[in-house]
Amino acid sequence: MTVKGDPVLNEGEKLEGILRGKFKIIQKEKGYRFSVDPLLLSDFVEIAEGETVIDLGTGCGVMPIILAEKTKAEKLVGVDIQKEMVSMAERSVDYNEVQDVVDIVECDLKSLDAKFDAESFDVVLSNPPYIPVKAGRINPLEEKAIARHEILADLSDVISGAKYLLKPKGRLFLIYTTNRLVELLSSLHDSGLEPKFVKFVYSNENSAAKLVLVKAVKGGKGELTVQKPLYIYNLEGDYTDEASSILENGNGTV
Amino acid sequence: MTVKGDPVLNEGEKLEGILRGKFKIIQKEKGYRFSVDPLLLSDFVEIAEGETVIDLGTGCGVMPIILAEKTKAEKLVGVDIQKEMVSMAERSVDYNEVQDVVDIVECDLKSLDAKFDAESFDVVLSNPPYIPVKAGRINPLEEKAIARHEILADLSDVISGAKYLLKPKGRLFLIYTTNRLVELLSSLHDSGLEPKFVKFVYSNENSAAKLVLVKAVKGGKGELTVQKPLYIYNLEGDYTDEASSILENGNGTV
Repeated sequence: MTVKGDPVLNEGEKLEGILRGKFKIIQKEKGYRFSVDPLLLSDFVEIAEGETVIDLGTGCGVMPIILAEKTKAEKLVGVDIQKEMVSMAERSVDYNEVQDVVDIVECDLKSLDAKFDAESFDVVLSNPPYIPVKAGRINPLEEKAIARHEILADLSDVISGAKYLLKPKGRLFLIYTTNRLVELLSSLHDSGLEPKFVKFVYSNENSAAKLVLVKAVKGGKGELTVQKPLYIYNLEGDYTDEASSILENGNGTV
Repeated sequence: MTVKGDPVLNEGEKLEGILRGKFKIIQKEKGYRFSVDPLLLSDFVEIAEGETVIDLGTGCGVMPIILAEKTKAEKLVGVDIQKEMVSMAERSVDYNEVQDVVDIVECDLKSLDAKFDAESFDVVLSNPPYIPVKAGRINPLEEKAIARHEILADLSDVISGAKYLLKPKGRLFLIYTTNRLVELLSSLHDSGLEPKFVKFVYSNENSAAKLVLVKAVKGGKGELTVQKPLYIYNLEGDYTDEASSILENGNGTV
């Protein structure tokens, strides 16, 4: 058993346990904090032994850290443009002792070719930022325009980056808002990253789906499969068994 | 209470009850027979009082006949290219005494402008044919190519037809295979028929979804909503309450 030393925490940072404390992640006490999205996507991805994996917009590094333990990937790279995030993610990688397999790299998604070779990864992951349109805060038309603009920029960066980085037949795994499903599927298809599997995430069995998990294959062809839904809560407001397995135990199938 | 006379049945035709015998539909004993699709779509559509509705590829006329009773549409037109289908549908319309509101018209979907004015309908419905790719019967690549070709032709006819027939902000309701979801959503979007609601139909809670119900709006903008799923069977193999309400009682919300 390894006794872990205390990580170096900067002012305003906190060490938080995920998956019942199996991993500890450094994040800000205020400001951007990761949600359940990277846990859901870490469960959805399929990574074979010896594969190379890159997470575009890794934030706190949650996905590479989890997947270092859950898979036999040869290399897991987390890329983020924000220096502060990169620093936190690097310290979390060290604290969780996965530095042999995880690299955190500061890089703009628009300039991936400066740091990475084309067609050098088997798998690309991403949880692209998406800004929900909240009515009433500012002029709704203006906010919608801003949100749409930011969403398209972010999503297209991820898709272009994946297209550049993936080997032929390489796989892209995304989690995204269902509100933009039409653009998401169209953009992937138009970029030669064919959507092959989608899985919708519903809060409970009476709600609309808010999130969608997508697997696309570079140069893939043919039909799409809509997998069975994932419900986060039962009607009593508790985690479903499946959500508990993914979000609390990290035992979902990889 | 109206006592109905016997319908005129041609050789090889049969009168079959749907929705617990509420309606009786003439169809062939062999050959093409309608499935649950028109019942699911009839439940999904929203038709307001006084609206004009057209069903592209109406087959036996199931949808206009059901909707004549369930809605207050001013006019329900069913279009089919096959003379034999048109004849059966017309006799079913008469037998179910909905001839005041339902018209069956023989017409090729590629020539709708010969019989209908542009922008003359509030609502377009369709259950376009889709040919599943069955492995092993013929050369899979050849069959796939044929299937894809036929599917695209049929789907694009329906989408072009809907674009021509719908008033601005008119609604298109479709049921289609999930296998082709990417093409379906992209084609609708590219034709200015923006997908606004989708609902996936699963055989049961452990299965992949085979069918998708879609509502698109001509000239619509903005976000998509993925509605709660519809399950046809529970894990015991019986209809779920929701499916029973739609498929047996016809009491689902319209």
